[in-house]
Amino acid sequence: MLTIEKIRHAQTVLTEAIYKTDVIYANRLSGEYDIYLKTENLQKTGSFKIRGAYYKISQLSPEEKKRGVIACSAGNHAQGVALAATKNGISSLICLPEGAPISKVEATRGYGAELCLVSGVYDDAYARAIQLRDECGYTFIHPFDDEDVIAGQGTIGLEILEQVKDVDAIVVPIGGGGLISGVAFAVKAVNPKVKIYGVQASGAPSMLNSLRDNKIETLPSVSTIADGIAVKQPGAHTFEYCKKFVNGVVTVTDEEIATAILALMERQKMIAEGAGATPLAAIMAGKLPELKGKKVCCLVSGGNIDVTILNRVVDRGLLMSGRKCTMNIELLDKPGQLVTVSKIIAACGANVVGVHHEHANAGSDVIGCFLRIDMETRDFEHIRKIRSALEQAGFHIE
Amino acid sequence: MLTIEKIRHAQTVLTEAIYKTDVIYANRLSGEYDIYLKTENLQKTGSFKIRGAYYKISQLSPEEKKRGVIACSAGNHAQGVALAATKNGISSLICLPEGAPISKVEATRGYGAELCLVSGVYDDAYARAIQLRDECGYTFIHPFDDEDVIAGQGTIGLEILEQVKDVDAIVVPIGGGGLISGVAFAVKAVNPKVKIYGVQASGAPSMLNSLRDNKIETLPSVSTIADGIAVKQPGAHTFEYCKKFVNGVVTVTDEEIATAILALMERQKMIAEGAGATPLAAIMAGKLPELKGKKVCCLVSGGNIDVTILNRVVDRGLLMSGRKCTMNIELLDKPGQLVTVSKIIAACGANVVGVHHEHANAGSDVIGCFLRIDMETRDFEHIRKIRSALEQAGFHIE
Repeated sequence: MLTIEKIRHAQTVLTEAIYKTDVIYANRLSGEYDIYLKTENLQKTGSFKIRGAYYKISQLSPEEKKRGVIACSAGNHAQGVALAATKNGISSLICLPEGAPISKVEATRGYGAELCLVSGVYDDAYARAIQLRDECGYTFIHPFDDEDVIAGQGTIGLEILEQVKDVDAIVVPIGGGGLISGVAFAVKAVNPKVKIYGVQASGAPSMLNSLRDNKIETLPSVSTIADGIAVKQPGAHTFEYCKKFVNGVVTVTDEEIATAILALMERQKMIAEGAGATPLAAIMAGKLPELKGKKVCCLVSGGNIDVTILNRVVDRGLLMSGRKCTMNIELLDKPGQLVTVSKIIAACGANVVGVHHEHANAGSDVIGCFLRIDMETRDFEHIRKIRSALEQAGFHIE
Repeated sequence: MLTIEKIRHAQTVLTEAIYKTDVIYANRLSGEYDIYLKTENLQKTGSFKIRGAYYKISQLSPEEKKRGVIACSAGNHAQGVALAATKNGISSLICLPEGAPISKVEATRGYGAELCLVSGVYDDAYARAIQLRDECGYTFIHPFDDEDVIAGQGTIGLEILEQVKDVDAIVVPIGGGGLISGVAFAVKAVNPKVKIYGVQASGAPSMLNSLRDNKIETLPSVSTIADGIAVKQPGAHTFEYCKKFVNGVVTVTDEEIATAILALMERQKMIAEGAGATPLAAIMAGKLPELKGKKVCCLVSGGNIDVTILNRVVDRGLLMSGRKCTMNIELLDKPGQLVTVSKIIAACGANVVGVHHEHANAGSDVIGCFLRIDMETRDFEHIRKIRSALEQAGFHIE
């Protein structure tokens, strides 16, 4: 059973294994809200998962430790279990789907785990892990629905209460619900006045739906850039804890998450993964207006963002700030047109990074063609100037 | 005159105005070297520049304060002076070239400065600032060649000595030389055994050349992604301090800087600007082999990276890790070819993000055409598999 004593015990045990991560006052994100960031993205393995995994493993019997542990994940949980097992001096076996990115596979191996690559998708890897547990006697480390794991995550709540005096509310990402269950249990036990809010991705609202309908529900599919919280079904324990201790759950879109990731990068010089950015996304998108004027701690749960997603987020930031622009210019198909356009753009001080020239389509003038130019620009005002210079020279821009 | 007492005095004065930034042990970058990061990228205004500017302004006479200060910059110095002046309760005027990015203009205005946009380039803005100083009696705040400014930057040296016990060496970016002069002076005064190394961009090696030839030299032009240290000529004071106190200066290429920025993002979840990443770049590129096995503190001087540069760095990271790939496939120009290629790529699990189809050029078969496919891939092994699947189906890849 989960108790505040168990969470305090976890805190003592964890001292030897993890960082007590900093809380940073987000001066460049605060304004209507007073925002603090609990930086679990700077935790060992790049996410909070090491806390629950380490405490769980530390509590195994000598006999269980001897047989080792098994888990199924291609993400933060895999790395958390791997390092936690290694630090406890025991062996770990991680099942993951064969298609998992090599960077994550290598990171997990680097923390000392043995890997079992299973052909198929996540569910196949999970089935194999359960089979191996039954056959070989490994202890299965659940990513969230386990009271020792929840106790480990709960230590973050105790740290926040100590690090942010008079905090009014803590905002926490929800995937399976392990993190928020631990944090909410710990915080409410010590100071019931502190509000706890959960945030899910709008493409994976399993806990939100379950709470709304007051029964555990399973989503047929999930889709979000926040892969760390793309979970189809909440846990049995975590569902009960959320029902009892969480003050509200909201969702954020991928668009809102991307904006928050970019804000953390630009204004706080910090990398968060999608899941880790959801609390700030909820604040920035106005999903928690009741927290205006309050002291709010956003739990930045992890920083292991896929570089492909990071690329898209930064790209989007360029477009949204007018630093990148594509123009489709209609040309007469005669010599010298490209020269004229290039000269105008160069005179405006934009940097051309891509050119694509295409002959007439059905819709356009039969002797016309299209020139698509990709440019690096300074801002929207700069784009406006380029556009008007081209138009003044007689070019038509689509 | 610069003295250790002055730097200690600056430290006392600065307590009220700035963060004592953390030193983070870079466990995921250490190995052959024991690497610590002094995180001035998390300083107020996103760089160390506030330190020198604040101390300089605090030491002005009441009469000078009344008249206000002026500076010329479109970067970190502008923001440092603006906030330092505001915090001292005095007015500031910043001259900058008209073409400066609106984000930096707005940030500077946001810290309370008045702006004077000057048509032309940096040198025009500088000339205008000097003219306004002479006409209106403002105090000009030099970005580096001023002993109060240098004393302010030197406080970082005192902090590092306190934060990293038994540090062997400190590696510092060099632009005009203000930062390294302050740090080297302070550190050598307290503990002469600690080595100080400077790093310049290979496209802007003004201090390196000047030290080599033992006289101040001016570069005709500078070119580097590290805009914060793109300085054509060292200062008269800073040149003397570097000669006296700096153990060595090395250079790093833009390529090496980009690799370091990416490593800081991926492994330490931290955003550094080009200049701020140069010390780590020097270590990673093996430019300071004498520091192997030593306790090295890299001074991450700032985090205000241009989002366009960030985009290029991330893009490069994708290519270098096999997460992005472009293939030029030769096709027979007959119906159904695109379908076949698409099917093969889909079966391999790659995500197509761009397609470009082009008819025959002089060099290729007259009935042939080229298909250029841009894909998101998992890793180099994945790319190899796609390539061999296409080749097995009879396609020729350029």
